[in-house]
Amino acid sequence: MKIYRVFILFITLLVLVLFCVADEGMWPMSEISKLNLRDKGLEIPPEEIYNPDGLSLIYAVVNVGATGSFVSPDGLIITNHHVAYGSVQAASTKEKDYIRHGFLARNLSDEIPAQGRTARIIDSFRDVSEEVLSVVEPGMSYADRTKAVERKIKDIVKREEKQHPGKRAEVAEMFSGKTYVLFLYTYLRDIRLVYVPPRSIGEFGGETDNWMWPRHTGDFSFMRAYVAPDGSPADYSPDNVPFHPKKYLRIAPEGVREGDFVFILGYPGRTYRHRTSYFLSFEEEIRMPYVVDWYQWQIDIIQKIGEKDRGIAIKHLSRIKGLSNTMKNYRGKLVGMERLDMTAKKRAEEENMQKFIDADGNLKAKYGDLLEKIGEVFRDMRQNAESELLLDYLPRSVIMLYFATTVYEAAHELRKPDLERESAYMDRNFPRLKQRLALYLRNYFEPTDKIVLKEILLRAFRLPEGQRIKALEEIIGGRTEGDIEIFIKNVFEKSRLDKEAILMKALEMSPDELYEMNDPFIQLAAALYPVFQEQKEKDRTRKGILDELRAKLIDVKQEYLKKDFIPDANGTLRLTYGRIRGYSPRDAVWYNPITTLEGVIEKTTGKEPFDTPEKIFSLYKERNFGRFAHPGLKTVPVCILYDMDTTGGNSGSPVLNARGELIGVNFDRAYEATINDFGWSDSYSRSIGVDIRYVLWVTQKYGGVNTLLRELGIDVSQ
Amino acid sequence: MKIYRVFILFITLLVLVLFCVADEGMWPMSEISKLNLRDKGLEIPPEEIYNPDGLSLIYAVVNVGATGSFVSPDGLIITNHHVAYGSVQAASTKEKDYIRHGFLARNLSDEIPAQGRTARIIDSFRDVSEEVLSVVEPGMSYADRTKAVERKIKDIVKREEKQHPGKRAEVAEMFSGKTYVLFLYTYLRDIRLVYVPPRSIGEFGGETDNWMWPRHTGDFSFMRAYVAPDGSPADYSPDNVPFHPKKYLRIAPEGVREGDFVFILGYPGRTYRHRTSYFLSFEEEIRMPYVVDWYQWQIDIIQKIGEKDRGIAIKHLSRIKGLSNTMKNYRGKLVGMERLDMTAKKRAEEENMQKFIDADGNLKAKYGDLLEKIGEVFRDMRQNAESELLLDYLPRSVIMLYFATTVYEAAHELRKPDLERESAYMDRNFPRLKQRLALYLRNYFEPTDKIVLKEILLRAFRLPEGQRIKALEEIIGGRTEGDIEIFIKNVFEKSRLDKEAILMKALEMSPDELYEMNDPFIQLAAALYPVFQEQKEKDRTRKGILDELRAKLIDVKQEYLKKDFIPDANGTLRLTYGRIRGYSPRDAVWYNPITTLEGVIEKTTGKEPFDTPEKIFSLYKERNFGRFAHPGLKTVPVCILYDMDTTGGNSGSPVLNARGELIGVNFDRAYEATINDFGWSDSYSRSIGVDIRYVLWVTQKYGGVNTLLRELGIDVSQ
Repeated sequence: MKIYRVFILFITLLVLVLFCVADEGMWPMSEISKLNLRDKGLEIPPEEIYNPDGLSLIYAVVNVGATGSFVSPDGLIITNHHVAYGSVQAASTKEKDYIRHGFLARNLSDEIPAQGRTARIIDSFRDVSEEVLSVVEPGMSYADRTKAVERKIKDIVKREEKQHPGKRAEVAEMFSGKTYVLFLYTYLRDIRLVYVPPRSIGEFGGETDNWMWPRHTGDFSFMRAYVAPDGSPADYSPDNVPFHPKKYLRIAPEGVREGDFVFILGYPGRTYRHRTSYFLSFEEEIRMPYVVDWYQWQIDIIQKIGEKDRGIAIKHLSRIKGLSNTMKNYRGKLVGMERLDMTAKKRAEEENMQKFIDADGNLKAKYGDLLEKIGEVFRDMRQNAESELLLDYLPRSVIMLYFATTVYEAAHELRKPDLERESAYMDRNFPRLKQRLALYLRNYFEPTDKIVLKEILLRAFRLPEGQRIKALEEIIGGRTEGDIEIFIKNVFEKSRLDKEAILMKALEMSPDELYEMNDPFIQLAAALYPVFQEQKEKDRTRKGILDELRAKLIDVKQEYLKKDFIPDANGTLRLTYGRIRGYSPRDAVWYNPITTLEGVIEKTTGKEPFDTPEKIFSLYKERNFGRFAHPGLKTVPVCILYDMDTTGGNSGSPVLNARGELIGVNFDRAYEATINDFGWSDSYSRSIGVDIRYVLWVTQKYGGVNTLLRELGIDVSQ
Repeated sequence: MKIYRVFILFITLLVLVLFCVADEGMWPMSEISKLNLRDKGLEIPPEEIYNPDGLSLIYAVVNVGATGSFVSPDGLIITNHHVAYGSVQAASTKEKDYIRHGFLARNLSDEIPAQGRTARIIDSFRDVSEEVLSVVEPGMSYADRTKAVERKIKDIVKREEKQHPGKRAEVAEMFSGKTYVLFLYTYLRDIRLVYVPPRSIGEFGGETDNWMWPRHTGDFSFMRAYVAPDGSPADYSPDNVPFHPKKYLRIAPEGVREGDFVFILGYPGRTYRHRTSYFLSFEEEIRMPYVVDWYQWQIDIIQKIGEKDRGIAIKHLSRIKGLSNTMKNYRGKLVGMERLDMTAKKRAEEENMQKFIDADGNLKAKYGDLLEKIGEVFRDMRQNAESELLLDYLPRSVIMLYFATTVYEAAHELRKPDLERESAYMDRNFPRLKQRLALYLRNYFEPTDKIVLKEILLRAFRLPEGQRIKALEEIIGGRTEGDIEIFIKNVFEKSRLDKEAILMKALEMSPDELYEMNDPFIQLAAALYPVFQEQKEKDRTRKGILDELRAKLIDVKQEYLKKDFIPDANGTLRLTYGRIRGYSPRDAVWYNPITTLEGVIEKTTGKEPFDTPEKIFSLYKERNFGRFAHPGLKTVPVCILYDMDTTGGNSGSPVLNARGELIGVNFDRAYEATINDFGWSDSYSRSIGVDIRYVLWVTQKYGGVNTLLRELGIDVSQ
């Protein structure tokens, strides 16, 4: 027994050492060379990942909505099932339901357009902080500061796109108010579907398993990028040819084992780790609970509405999906923040930094009231938070009001010079806005909109005295439930914005023409327009103040901690690295980092979303695993878990092994890892990918597509 | 890395060896000597556990509803909180809510009566199979066989109780239709409450955590047995003195570690492991799904009824608790049976045994059609299963009908000689029946009863043609929902069985007097009486057939497997042994076998049933763990998990270490272990106890009762 205990101790130490390589960090490419990745487990030179002067792995990474990667010399892209979902749905008909049955092209000519999909490849990037901030003048008001920076960025983008025809320029704010990087991208516009598994594999577990580990979802799909015969980006044409990427990823069909070094290249969306305790407590105490409550109310009511009629339920599917996704994410965050005591820890950090500042005369003069000033902004936000949040969610929750406010805003914005408009109304973005409105209209269901509007108006009328929204009360003409009911009956009866032709026409109208329409929803939007404008101005002022303060905060934090920081995620290319690693979600429970086909079988109930296809069952019973069984587990691995640092936007990112070969496709985080957006936790920050062995096994054994495996360089005779 | 893998392999082997001691088995005392417990980890001679000729641990075990054990020379008993619950509730008033706040007696004079509670101590036992079976004659009908055996057992009990005044005799059927054991028990009748933690500790997790691991419930309480000054059992009297048990258990305050050898002595209720695949498939396909569906319907409706009024909700609490407990247990069983493919495996076993029988002329002559004949009984049960199940659950689900059928049956049974009555109406049992009725009446709520009766009548009317219950249709006088509604309105309006005085009086009436009452519920009971009697006769016949067949089955099984069996649990004293051991409930998840105070804090929401007392929080924050921290985990362990073989009735059983010292109190099984009743699984059969360290820590640090710890022999100065 003694020897047994010594061994256990030894193993524990060994494991600790092995695992201590994981680190917080979504590293910009410029930082990779400083990371000593070779010491941490990387077996190739870091320059093979990113090399400012030559070919590297980053050219295999592509943005197709979220992240994807090239996996063959002929432009084959692998990404998530849920990333391709919209295009698969759009290509489906009643007769050809690719969502239900999956899609399979046996050769190039079978591949069909992934409608509306583009593939964005990185061309180059450089720091433009100095140029952007050149417009900031000392005496400027905060709102003016924000506007000036926004305007300057638009200028740079316009100039760059003119200089590089066909490319798209984007300026990303790395540290708020402090550093800006200009990216140049190429957009490929002819993307086609190649292989998509059925929903019962690609979305196995659905909402129930979303944000959850252990996971058993085959969340992958294959697409292909096409270009004009001369190699230039082009819209769909039957004459187009497969694109040849500068670089593509090799596949490692042998997959990974627990403890293996892995890394991810991808486009994480947004994180808030450099924010203060004031921000965290506002999120924890005010904003997230408000959203959770409001979304849960909507989900409950919408589910009830859909109970009796499958057709009506289907209209609401994507709305419920969106609401649930955010709600579950926020719930997870609230659990994680409480469990890790995040806000209090951040506050303690700030108190220590304040002492450091106060101890030095120079620092005190420059930064003494910095935190206090940031706190002031949040105290101001708390003042009318309830009413401001309600205003924020009002047009987002009531579709007809969303149409009306957009139409009304368009009438004003489209009359301004392009560069002065709100971003959504600029020429380069307006078509996308129209598309979104049309999509919303397709799933519009009046009874839902009525119930939601009534509830939010009732809530508006219950706002505390000081926060009441006068404009609302005036247009409704009373404060009772009866008044609201009469008002709602009237606006829905008379408004015609739910006719697509009228809505689209209204989007081009001038304010005067809109006035002529005499549409009650437009009138409601007009009555609220000044309120919304006032709110926007308030937000701009706050952003202006905070941008300047946050820039200073980064400066003093650097002095205090004596080290550099990684900027928060902002949709630009990042690297994160770590290990295949399990975790303990709660007392006495341990999650292993590799799930298996057994788990798929175990979860299967036969009912959506746990309705595994019969063929998977028979392959399982025959133990027909091909070359894809895990040598230790003796079965096909399905999903993998790792302690890398990811967030939304990392969906579809390639998961690579120490040799830079593809071993998985990232698609989600564990429930407790939703806190990643606010802070990294060694205990809970775990992300989820589909194991490449499951991808290949499903593609070969279930899909029966040997050609595809051959294109991926996999020897299927084995 | 190589060395690391070799170590892992080594450890894995070591752990496998250590864990291979666990075994199926709820062993009768007579079998203990054959078990080689010393080789399996026991450090004391097995005779210290059970010695037919002398003092042993079994005399420290006591039945107080479920199991308990003596833990001091002065009759102190430890058992579960949920076992003491009823007595604590009965002792509580609005002013003194012992359920909410717990109960604490600082000295003997503070101890209060645990109303209605008795403590049963084992006196002796011996095999009486021959005597019981002497009444069985070759030509007997099956129903007569059952009746004769029942009657003989009553005779033996009467004789023994006469011979041993003050003792209670019970005959337990060990193998159905084959072996019978006579037990003589002493009943102590003055039991008092000593220390009961508040519900927020003793019932922490409530229904949510019931049947679940990881668990964090402090499910323990202390009571004390009193006797007359001369040492004889007596009803409560202030003159009584603490009982001095022949034997009491020593406490091991240092607790256990993962992998430790442990054993349990207790009174497991019922298991069905010797039943056939016909029984299993009837349970899996017919009876359990029926009950799950019907209980779930009742729970839903009762919860709805209680939603608006806390007072009404409280009336239904124990009913919902009972329904949920069974329903969750059955759901767990259904999951486990499917996952382990139990029925199919049992069938395969039987097919092999059939081959063995068929291969031998002698065996074939004796047992050739044995399985076939058992199958026949179950085929017969399937014939009208729906209607028989409905009849079974009808009086159990409608309280007024339960009153009426009991009253009506009493009128007939009480007129028979005592020994010929149904057991519940025998003089020794009838007072208990009356108590139960009074308790039911206290929580009776007419609207619930009406809704449930309506639903079950609607279901009766939807029975397939051949299964219709004519007597019901005749008395209702129609087959429409309207007819049912009129009928229900009438019976509830006119019946007076919901008045306690009338109900109690009716229980003593003759059939003629009942007829005079003209009570519509009695009339309904009278109309159904012949149907119920017919059903009882059917059940007796089936039992008669099966008893004989099952006895033969055990014989041939012994020949086939060439080994002895342990009889199914039957409420008699048993031993089970194993190890402190975790398990994998599903793919990629591992449960550790010891939970901690951290988990209590983690689960606490502040709302029932997760409302940990403030004082526990402050003790936790101060890390005020006394001597009760787990040396490895550095915190107080709360619950423990082990691979022993338990079932209902094992609640409150002492969990003992290799030296026979108390290290926990058993109280539940893991969800997947609900299948224990049908079969043991090395992968899933895990039972749950509260760790003695948590018991002692709560008692000392939260309760502040050092006297009690001293009585337990714990040095609290440490």
